[in-house]
Amino acid sequence: MNFFVLFFSFFIAFLAAADEGMWTFNHFPSEQVKAKYKFDVTKEWLDHARLSSARLADGCSGSFVSSQGLVMTNHHCAHSCIEQLSKSGKDYVADGFFATNLKDELKCPELEINKLVEILDVTQRIRTKTVNLKGKEFNTQLKAVMSEIEKDCSGTSETIRCDVVTLYHGGQYHLYKYQRYQDVRMVFAPELSIAFFGGDPDNFNFPRYALDTTFLRIYEQGKPLQTSDYFKWSMEGAIENELTFVTGHPGRTSRLLTISELEFVRDVRLVHELIYRSELRGMLTQFQQRGKEQKRYSTSELFYTENGIKAMKGQLLALQDQSFFASKINDEKQLRQKINAHPKWKKEYGSAWDDMASAYKDLRNIYEAYRYMERDRYRSTLFTIAKNLVRAAGELPKPNEQRYREFAESGLPQFKQNLLSSAPIYDDLEIENLTFGLTKMRETLGPDHAYPKKLLGNKSPREMAEYLIKGTKLKDVSVRQKLFDGGQKAINESKDPLIQLALLLDPDTRAVRTKYEDDIEGRVKQASEKIAQAMFAVYGSKRYPDATFTLRMSYGQVKGYEQKGEFIKPFTNIAGAFNRHTGSEPFTLPKTWLNAKSKLDLNTKFNFVSTNDIIGGNSGSPVINQKSEIVGLIFDGNIQSLGGDFGFDARVNRAVSVDSSVIVETLNKIYGAGRIVNELGK
Amino acid sequence: MNFFVLFFSFFIAFLAAADEGMWTFNHFPSEQVKAKYKFDVTKEWLDHARLSSARLADGCSGSFVSSQGLVMTNHHCAHSCIEQLSKSGKDYVADGFFATNLKDELKCPELEINKLVEILDVTQRIRTKTVNLKGKEFNTQLKAVMSEIEKDCSGTSETIRCDVVTLYHGGQYHLYKYQRYQDVRMVFAPELSIAFFGGDPDNFNFPRYALDTTFLRIYEQGKPLQTSDYFKWSMEGAIENELTFVTGHPGRTSRLLTISELEFVRDVRLVHELIYRSELRGMLTQFQQRGKEQKRYSTSELFYTENGIKAMKGQLLALQDQSFFASKINDEKQLRQKINAHPKWKKEYGSAWDDMASAYKDLRNIYEAYRYMERDRYRSTLFTIAKNLVRAAGELPKPNEQRYREFAESGLPQFKQNLLSSAPIYDDLEIENLTFGLTKMRETLGPDHAYPKKLLGNKSPREMAEYLIKGTKLKDVSVRQKLFDGGQKAINESKDPLIQLALLLDPDTRAVRTKYEDDIEGRVKQASEKIAQAMFAVYGSKRYPDATFTLRMSYGQVKGYEQKGEFIKPFTNIAGAFNRHTGSEPFTLPKTWLNAKSKLDLNTKFNFVSTNDIIGGNSGSPVINQKSEIVGLIFDGNIQSLGGDFGFDARVNRAVSVDSSVIVETLNKIYGAGRIVNELGK
Repeated sequence: MNFFVLFFSFFIAFLAAADEGMWTFNHFPSEQVKAKYKFDVTKEWLDHARLSSARLADGCSGSFVSSQGLVMTNHHCAHSCIEQLSKSGKDYVADGFFATNLKDELKCPELEINKLVEILDVTQRIRTKTVNLKGKEFNTQLKAVMSEIEKDCSGTSETIRCDVVTLYHGGQYHLYKYQRYQDVRMVFAPELSIAFFGGDPDNFNFPRYALDTTFLRIYEQGKPLQTSDYFKWSMEGAIENELTFVTGHPGRTSRLLTISELEFVRDVRLVHELIYRSELRGMLTQFQQRGKEQKRYSTSELFYTENGIKAMKGQLLALQDQSFFASKINDEKQLRQKINAHPKWKKEYGSAWDDMASAYKDLRNIYEAYRYMERDRYRSTLFTIAKNLVRAAGELPKPNEQRYREFAESGLPQFKQNLLSSAPIYDDLEIENLTFGLTKMRETLGPDHAYPKKLLGNKSPREMAEYLIKGTKLKDVSVRQKLFDGGQKAINESKDPLIQLALLLDPDTRAVRTKYEDDIEGRVKQASEKIAQAMFAVYGSKRYPDATFTLRMSYGQVKGYEQKGEFIKPFTNIAGAFNRHTGSEPFTLPKTWLNAKSKLDLNTKFNFVSTNDIIGGNSGSPVINQKSEIVGLIFDGNIQSLGGDFGFDARVNRAVSVDSSVIVETLNKIYGAGRIVNELGK
Repeated sequence: MNFFVLFFSFFIAFLAAADEGMWTFNHFPSEQVKAKYKFDVTKEWLDHARLSSARLADGCSGSFVSSQGLVMTNHHCAHSCIEQLSKSGKDYVADGFFATNLKDELKCPELEINKLVEILDVTQRIRTKTVNLKGKEFNTQLKAVMSEIEKDCSGTSETIRCDVVTLYHGGQYHLYKYQRYQDVRMVFAPELSIAFFGGDPDNFNFPRYALDTTFLRIYEQGKPLQTSDYFKWSMEGAIENELTFVTGHPGRTSRLLTISELEFVRDVRLVHELIYRSELRGMLTQFQQRGKEQKRYSTSELFYTENGIKAMKGQLLALQDQSFFASKINDEKQLRQKINAHPKWKKEYGSAWDDMASAYKDLRNIYEAYRYMERDRYRSTLFTIAKNLVRAAGELPKPNEQRYREFAESGLPQFKQNLLSSAPIYDDLEIENLTFGLTKMRETLGPDHAYPKKLLGNKSPREMAEYLIKGTKLKDVSVRQKLFDGGQKAINESKDPLIQLALLLDPDTRAVRTKYEDDIEGRVKQASEKIAQAMFAVYGSKRYPDATFTLRMSYGQVKGYEQKGEFIKPFTNIAGAFNRHTGSEPFTLPKTWLNAKSKLDLNTKFNFVSTNDIIGGNSGSPVINQKSEIVGLIFDGNIQSLGGDFGFDARVNRAVSVDSSVIVETLNKIYGAGRIVNELGK
């Protein structure tokens, strides 16, 4: 699978006419599209697409598909909610869910949806405050002014969300203003066996047969949201070679990173994560053997774990490809030569790469401590809740701009929604996860490190996990509410073992965070800013920024590709799914499908590929045609797209979507969900 | 943990006076030792050490410690046997084992011990037969002549074992002639909690407190072996700064590999193995939660898995260290320059590095298929047995030199011992292991690969594993014996589902093996031979070959080291173990120890470190002083030694041993095993 040999150097790709790029809406290359596809992307066209796009704040994309607040996304984006709404005897993940009537739609405990209403450039406002500052002071001031700008934007409203977004790793700062929706209800989800047909073996592969589709509905004051911003629906679906657009929220790319950053990703982060998650995968797979119930409530965790492993394996393979990496090294060398050849540039930006390398060298020394003490919540929902309650008590009394960024006003409603979520928590899974997390923490830091000694005392990770989970009362939402409302006093007086432990550890976890933010993060951000400016200076601004989980538009074409000398056609159909059905997991079609086979048009298009440039976070994005009609629903990339984190190869990199026609066909003929079909695009 | 920054370039290290090297007994650097330590290592001294050394054929070392066939090794080298002798209600791993009388000693079902009686240089005999051959023909002929030499040496004797050993990756071929012992009985093993005190967290660390010690006894014709070759015992133990020797069987080092080989190890093999074993670790850890029984019979598998993970993490870290790897690249560059500057050398060896790189490039394309189809037995003992029976039926009728090497006469007694072992096999663990192995195989090759399709048909990995393990009769040793004796006809007629499956797959697995051996292996071996000769030409022969799981001698000193600015003293004592006891796994001293505390001399030396150059396979090696007395028992290396696969840094690389004095102290005062103490060295 040495497919990364084919990678272009990314600067060359930038300048080429490939359908590359995750473009911001205020910087879309309309001329480029017009030149290649003879289609005029107007401001009105873009505005409509932007207002019809949805962001699932937890990490996915979606689209408005009716005037009644109906939102389409992937099953795997709503998997947690579907699992949370299930209970013993009602397994909506396995059996699917359909609200026959409006009143049967069920509220998701932790979903927040955002709609982007405005983008403002705030680069100057930020630069004015941070100019001449260095390292720690730069970083502290940068965060403070970001929180300040956000607060100025949202005021005290809980339905407006304002985020300052760092584009080009600091080359620009833009303010994104969203409408925030927190009453999101489940309308329809198919069975997991068809939503994720082929399971992990087929994941990131094509040809493919997955109905990875879910419909949600946004409510306002208890009623379906009334909106004029939504996409029309194409009953016909996608057409080979047609121009397609994807509007969504790619999570993160690393195409503009320096070599020292990429080396860190390759040698430290990816290897570390792959080892960690692989062990977790083994644990969860075996945990599922305990029984049907355990399988039911650990399925989404296992899915996200496996999905991450497969994606990261692809990323690692890309970075290990020697010719690809050599091209990255060469790109950087050329850029630095150009900067150094220009006295003013050299003075301003020349040292940035060495500064970055030095910061990353230091990061390697504290990465593990930072990750395990501050970033990782030991995989336990309850432990996370305890830590968040303790932190909230410490942070919220401070002025907005002095708080940790996750406690700034802008994010508080989402924070509270998660903290006070009614989603069920299962003791046995909590204990296994916490045992796992504590074991890995001690293993990584070493048994003689002060932190695991303080945390565990004389207990083993398992003994400690059992003591904490069996002893805590935090499963009760009202207990959490009281502790949240009661502030520092309530926290200090709590006898809850998890709260007491989180309080005990708080000085240590704050200390390692301070060390990270003051010693490393500021230097990285400052070097990033300089390198971004150096790139603007040399290459101009006709480029797109790395992905930041903010709204982007990519354009492309429905198009097959070559793989191992074979041409992969762009479409599959329903007949192909029946051919691939073996009757054994994960190649099992649901009974509803087997029963309905004779009614189905087996030639209906099922999944398709297009050249749109996407990445994780784009899941749930609509694929639209020139008429702004939905022709598909992004749910994956092919295996060759996994290196897309670092570069884009237009020849083989493909986005994978559910065709709009199979959604209608199956809603009608399998799920009796005509009420949704009737609403689509209306 | 960036300790590999400290690594020397290995060629520099070679020439330096560091205590580096795993020396063959017929090429020991006596002058070097004399110059540094003023001690004369005579031929007699070496012969006595050689004949008193033992090899556990499955992958460990040991020493003869009495005239009555008593052999000392590590607990972790005999762990499988101790587990195999255990049963429900008799857990010798957890509770330890001591045969109060000779007649209570229990036979290990799968242990073979070898004693090296002769070494002969057969390089010329091999070269004569392989000269002028290339690739596939070279490889086939090389294997044939090796099997022929071995057969000539052992004749039909089952108690003589002859192995041709490839030294310097083909620079020399030596014939190692062993006395073979297959009746090996368990005499003494302490509780796992003290043998492996500190568990995985303390593994590869120092200071350390582990009584990783087991005593076995070799029997001949039902009676203890009478021998005059054994080490004396030092009651006093090791002394700081004294000269120490380690005689044992280091398994594999990669210090002489080319850059293309090291890149393969770094980017493909280690990453692949770490991910695979980490998932396995998670599976097994969770499997142990099923109950006490399951924990009992999966402990050794989990131990070997965790041990491998920790070792490979260290190896990966070493290879990822940029300055270390740059020094390797530089070494190779210099060597090639010297070869290219010399017309005759250039002609003979000049192309070898490119040939090697080209072979490894091709290996990357078939590595996964080769590994999963031919090398990996899907983790199931029963599946392995079935495959071995099918293969034996096909191979044994052939002339010795035409068989696969593992069916050559030299290895057959060990093969049969394993095939017909009475060790218990547990269905549930077999099913989980096989499910795991089949899942990984399909995941790696892909669900559309012909091999998993043929193997699984319409079944899922779990369904197939259950079908096979529940349906097979191969747990019954007499069934295996009959199939082995019955040859191809019995195999063809067998209705056993595992035999039928192994037979079905045999053409495919043979085909991928042929592809590997013909297309890759021959080219690698031939390039290796040339590079070895190039190194002899440039650097002369004052070097040691990479480890090959054959007897080697290393010399060194009992000596502490610096770590993170702190001096680590070379010894721990019993008092330290009591200090480290928390009462929670893996920091729990056995009850026998807690009860005996008042009787013990708490100042008794426990574990110590020395500068001896060792690697995996050396486990169980004796540490001897100038008087040939045992002062310690190797059981580990420190964390800094993990890069020892690729280079040796004398400043921090340390071997970790059990002091001989703690063995005597605890045998006497805790285990009531005076009968062993009285025998030691006598």
